[in-house]
Amino acid sequence: MQAVCLRAIPEGMPQPSDFVLQTLPVPRPGTGQVLVRLHWLSLDPFLRAQLGGRYVAPCPPLGAVVPGYAVGTVVEDATGRFAAGQWVTGLLGWAQYAMADAGALQPVDATLAPPSTAVGVLGVPGLTAWAGVRHILEPKAGQTVVISTAAGAVGSIAGQLCKAAGARVVGLTSTTEKCTLLTETYGFDAAVNYRASDFAEALRAACPARIDGYFDNVGGAVLETVLGQLGLRARVVLCGLSDQYNRAERPPGPNLGPVIGARARLEGLVVYDHLDAFDTCRSELAGLIADGRLHYREHIHHGLENAAAGFIGLLRGENTGKALVAVAHD
Amino acid sequence: MQAVCLRAIPEGMPQPSDFVLQTLPVPRPGTGQVLVRLHWLSLDPFLRAQLGGRYVAPCPPLGAVVPGYAVGTVVEDATGRFAAGQWVTGLLGWAQYAMADAGALQPVDATLAPPSTAVGVLGVPGLTAWAGVRHILEPKAGQTVVISTAAGAVGSIAGQLCKAAGARVVGLTSTTEKCTLLTETYGFDAAVNYRASDFAEALRAACPARIDGYFDNVGGAVLETVLGQLGLRARVVLCGLSDQYNRAERPPGPNLGPVIGARARLEGLVVYDHLDAFDTCRSELAGLIADGRLHYREHIHHGLENAAAGFIGLLRGENTGKALVAVAHD
Repeated sequence: MQAVCLRAIPEGMPQPSDFVLQTLPVPRPGTGQVLVRLHWLSLDPFLRAQLGGRYVAPCPPLGAVVPGYAVGTVVEDATGRFAAGQWVTGLLGWAQYAMADAGALQPVDATLAPPSTAVGVLGVPGLTAWAGVRHILEPKAGQTVVISTAAGAVGSIAGQLCKAAGARVVGLTSTTEKCTLLTETYGFDAAVNYRASDFAEALRAACPARIDGYFDNVGGAVLETVLGQLGLRARVVLCGLSDQYNRAERPPGPNLGPVIGARARLEGLVVYDHLDAFDTCRSELAGLIADGRLHYREHIHHGLENAAAGFIGLLRGENTGKALVAVAHD
Repeated sequence: MQAVCLRAIPEGMPQPSDFVLQTLPVPRPGTGQVLVRLHWLSLDPFLRAQLGGRYVAPCPPLGAVVPGYAVGTVVEDATGRFAAGQWVTGLLGWAQYAMADAGALQPVDATLAPPSTAVGVLGVPGLTAWAGVRHILEPKAGQTVVISTAAGAVGSIAGQLCKAAGARVVGLTSTTEKCTLLTETYGFDAAVNYRASDFAEALRAACPARIDGYFDNVGGAVLETVLGQLGLRARVVLCGLSDQYNRAERPPGPNLGPVIGARARLEGLVVYDHLDAFDTCRSELAGLIADGRLHYREHIHHGLENAAAGFIGLLRGENTGKALVAVAHD
């Protein structure tokens, strides 16, 4: 059988020479295993991160079949779990045939949609879009939502789900043709080419009421531009960092890769939103102070003539506790 | 009276010469206004951001009294709302006396705690700590929480509130003396000097079970280091960016200033957390496809010999829709 194996770990953008087409023996299933004939192989951006050792799944060893999701039909299942000819999907790899543990395969309902959709709209890309929209973005009617890589497998579904929820949807993509696809086929309200030199201005024009939600698959400069135009209490799905998958060095500044890996939540706090809770807060803190359970320090500068020096010391981290100026009047 | 006025917009770290002590006439209250004698002037890091035009409140004009929270006593209130001698707080500025609209002053209960705390633990710094801990961090017993600028007005309160909630609290501060203050006076479980060259390792040693919550007042390299050690579903309060208040140029990488201003929420998504919802998601998407409300495209490459080229094209953004390889068998 034919299989594509990893010849070299890519540096920067992968090259065809990083991969090699080889002839390998068709694997023979062991106990509990299933032989699958592949029909559709999924190409996914996360593979680039995996080949750089930056993914939840480890980088495969050199010489191994390149990993990847695929859809195929069962040739032989000694466990009796799958009938011959049954459509299945799983992490089968870049080959004509693959072996898999029966428990690692999911049956595909070919009456629901064409089997290829099991690695697309009805597969992990569809689930990614759905989970990000349902659990993080939660778009409401009338809100403006921006979707990156909007003509891609995840973005196109995410945008249409937001549209179905009544949101105004603006897609970011890389060519004029794909912009047209977004508005004419997928029903997006607007599309912006993020590779254009006037991207920030074009985004602002497309989102005059600010941005309530953003589904980010790219990171980098595109994320930075959108963050600069977020509206009050906007929600951002940090889903991918395709902008840096091909870079040997991580870009400068806060790296959001570990934030994605940790499924962490970062939230901006502006204290003035909480003024209506001031009395509650004050009673609670005063009670803790009275009970000896909350301690505070004051760092006191004397006289207005020392206010500037006190302020500069505060910025240098030279104070300990609350910095104050005792104003003299004599 | 004495007042400190703004002589120049600071460049980088403020200099004493950016401020000037002047003698001004004591203001005379107009209709609805109150004359206040200042006792305590609050020095706050956000003033640096304000003087750089990067704050929710605008930068004051050159020559104006430097703005700032203060605590004082009422000298004269034509409105009758406040008695002479009543303690009040508000944005009064760097001066011995200030005028304020009666509605812009809050009374201070001097029986609760010393009046100076109205700009400290029982003022905006206390409310900031309380709101971040109660509404974003939500620490649980046994969790590990990290607090930046932990010996400061906000951090010291935030850490003690987390401690009262049963969390293990690790404080970040800038000197050995302040580390001792954190553990001995404030009851933190550990303290780490973020200016030490081994900061990342020391933080890891202090948080062996990973970090469940982080209260960030600094941004920059400290935030970057903590983000790299977040545990699953960690929560991060983005509250301040003192690391960049004195920089003329914004640091490279995603700028979190607008995220704070928008009170936005950024959340990492890993699709594998949502596999148990796969059936629900698939039924919903298949229904939308059947109804003609959800469209998808497949970008098909033919034969395993074209898989590598298809993958590279995907990384270049050359595909439209889901990238697939049709595996041939003849």
